[in-house]
Amino acid sequence: MKEITGGICAAKGFKANGIHCGIRKNKTKRDLSLITSEVKAAAAAVYTTNLVKGAPLTVTKAHIADGYAQAVICNSGNANTCNANGIEIAEQMSELVEKATGISKNDVVIASTGVIGQVLDITPIANGMDELAAGLGDHSDLAAEGIMTTDTVKKEIAVSFDIGGVECKIGGIAKGSGMIHPNMATMLVFITTDVAIAPELLQKALSTDIASTFNMVSVDGDTSTNDMVTVLANGMAGNAIIDKEDESFAEFCKALNSVTVYLCRKIAGDGEGATKLLECKVTGATDEKTAKTVAKSVICSSLLKAAMFGADANWGRVLCAIGYSGADVDVNKIDVSFESAKGRLDVCVNGAGIEFSEEKAKEILLEKEIDILVELNSGDAKATAWGCDLTYDYVKINGDYRT
Amino acid sequence: MKEITGGICAAKGFKANGIHCGIRKNKTKRDLSLITSEVKAAAAAVYTTNLVKGAPLTVTKAHIADGYAQAVICNSGNANTCNANGIEIAEQMSELVEKATGISKNDVVIASTGVIGQVLDITPIANGMDELAAGLGDHSDLAAEGIMTTDTVKKEIAVSFDIGGVECKIGGIAKGSGMIHPNMATMLVFITTDVAIAPELLQKALSTDIASTFNMVSVDGDTSTNDMVTVLANGMAGNAIIDKEDESFAEFCKALNSVTVYLCRKIAGDGEGATKLLECKVTGATDEKTAKTVAKSVICSSLLKAAMFGADANWGRVLCAIGYSGADVDVNKIDVSFESAKGRLDVCVNGAGIEFSEEKAKEILLEKEIDILVELNSGDAKATAWGCDLTYDYVKINGDYRT
Repeated sequence: MKEITGGICAAKGFKANGIHCGIRKNKTKRDLSLITSEVKAAAAAVYTTNLVKGAPLTVTKAHIADGYAQAVICNSGNANTCNANGIEIAEQMSELVEKATGISKNDVVIASTGVIGQVLDITPIANGMDELAAGLGDHSDLAAEGIMTTDTVKKEIAVSFDIGGVECKIGGIAKGSGMIHPNMATMLVFITTDVAIAPELLQKALSTDIASTFNMVSVDGDTSTNDMVTVLANGMAGNAIIDKEDESFAEFCKALNSVTVYLCRKIAGDGEGATKLLECKVTGATDEKTAKTVAKSVICSSLLKAAMFGADANWGRVLCAIGYSGADVDVNKIDVSFESAKGRLDVCVNGAGIEFSEEKAKEILLEKEIDILVELNSGDAKATAWGCDLTYDYVKINGDYRT
Repeated sequence: MKEITGGICAAKGFKANGIHCGIRKNKTKRDLSLITSEVKAAAAAVYTTNLVKGAPLTVTKAHIADGYAQAVICNSGNANTCNANGIEIAEQMSELVEKATGISKNDVVIASTGVIGQVLDITPIANGMDELAAGLGDHSDLAAEGIMTTDTVKKEIAVSFDIGGVECKIGGIAKGSGMIHPNMATMLVFITTDVAIAPELLQKALSTDIASTFNMVSVDGDTSTNDMVTVLANGMAGNAIIDKEDESFAEFCKALNSVTVYLCRKIAGDGEGATKLLECKVTGATDEKTAKTVAKSVICSSLLKAAMFGADANWGRVLCAIGYSGADVDVNKIDVSFESAKGRLDVCVNGAGIEFSEEKAKEILLEKEIDILVELNSGDAKATAWGCDLTYDYVKINGDYRT
């Protein structure tokens, strides 16, 4: 397996584009993206568990109920959620795609992201669709831009891998910066692959993967109404179709995981206002659930996040967050260390503080990527969660998001 | 029932004091407080549910196991938590109280608040104890100051009420500004009353009360390791002892509730960095648990808190927080309004946005106390939760708390 360029257009048969159609006021920001496959693709998706669900998710669910899809349309600037006519607008979006590309509206995945509760005007989308479709090509980067909201960096990745001697490719783009605390699904992530795989196995691979990837990311504890991850697999690589959980399936899962972990780190590190990527690695847990609960509680602590912003080795907040996580742990066995490119520092052993150099701690914590290592000393299970620091800019961005 | 002055010294037989003994570097900040009762008092307490528990809580639990106590000692500047010798230090604190006041060390409630994981030096406490005890008097305000950490205002209250024709009094002080997300107990709250009541009924009154008061407050979602609420009832008012759940018990519960609600509002409004008190009032729920879950989820949303800081009527974030709360609600029936001294504004009806004046919204949300009204239209149950906005100063305070 190796990293390659091309993002969602790396896999055979996929084209993409992204334009500014006018949903957003700022004319330099793209706000509409389209991804198409030359042929019908097996499709899998996972969605937010929020009871308040964006209308596009409801429509998408219906469209991929048969296990297949061929295009993705996504706008930014408006979430098309909590509107009386949301379903209608989402259906219109897929009809516009059919008209412009010839792909059946029932094979279109629809997504929207932005403000909740404002009616989404279909006019700019209708006006921009022809330009969007005409420009389809090797433009993963433009599609990645078109789905961004408060994101500051594009998030795209592709890898090539081998299945039964056939080279396959998988790539993804993602958006997500605030309202990030996925549960069963997450932000918006679009993954394309040319692997040949049965829809039910594609869904299984995705559902299994997100439990230890996107569901372990948190920027602010808020689970969005519009989270969604989709994978389209069009089979154009030419491998023998994966239709059981064999070695080829395992290979595909590994490639998928390399794409999702990369995007998780990108999303966490680009959390609203973030200056640092935080990675909490929990080891020595009695079981995986405990490890996950502990890792996610640490990564979600506002107090720890603020301390990391200040490069303050306030490990008491790590213990505090473990203590209220709900996980059944022996607090007197916990060891905590901080690690970055500048080295590693142990700060707590057996649940109590040990002497350490504040100077060394500062040096380690001033880095852009910080690992918080928690050893529970009670078993073999482990888990990783990703988050970011809490900064002035998070408050600034969210204090007046709508204007 | 009427509000009176005197705080924790309003009730007969209670004295208090607070001094700077040297735990904190800043000499203008008091860091040690003592409260005593002339006679032994029935004692009740509730504690944090965090698995990582401050040593003082463990010792306090043992000391009031018999249902009685006569003094409270509390320091700020160091939480005496996650230290190998924490229990020993907490025991020494109660021994120092015995030496200085003659009150048995086994009748002393001990509390500490401040940094976690640094050894608490007993020396300044030992050196300051005589001065602290000698100054005991009508000094509720000094005791309230001595327990403050990042608090910006003193939190004290007292009310008088009538039980069977006898005037009784109850008063309380509290500290709490960050790491506030109590569960079963909360921050540090010390309540004194001269009512005569059996210890088991006092505990029952307190345990019942906190479920709808302190447990419904959140500043940052972090449940502290040292949360504790205690009530001392010394019986000096002279009422017939309350030993069953009769009318007198109900009267006492009412008075207790007026003290706890006042302190809840004070704590939430003085949340770290807060500029606004937020009160989420949920009505029309199928049951109380649902109402509480919804209210607390709204008050805990970082995104909503940041929007309130920016006086932005971003009600979509209210719906989003209800949707991921885990409560079983019909999202298509939810109405949302914002209310303050400047009036009330409906912004969402039946789960969808309605047109409203942004100007009026701004006027309402620029006030210091904002009510977020959520009508679920599904039943008669209701609940209130208290919180505050998320501001630059929360990040500033917690980015470098230890220095």
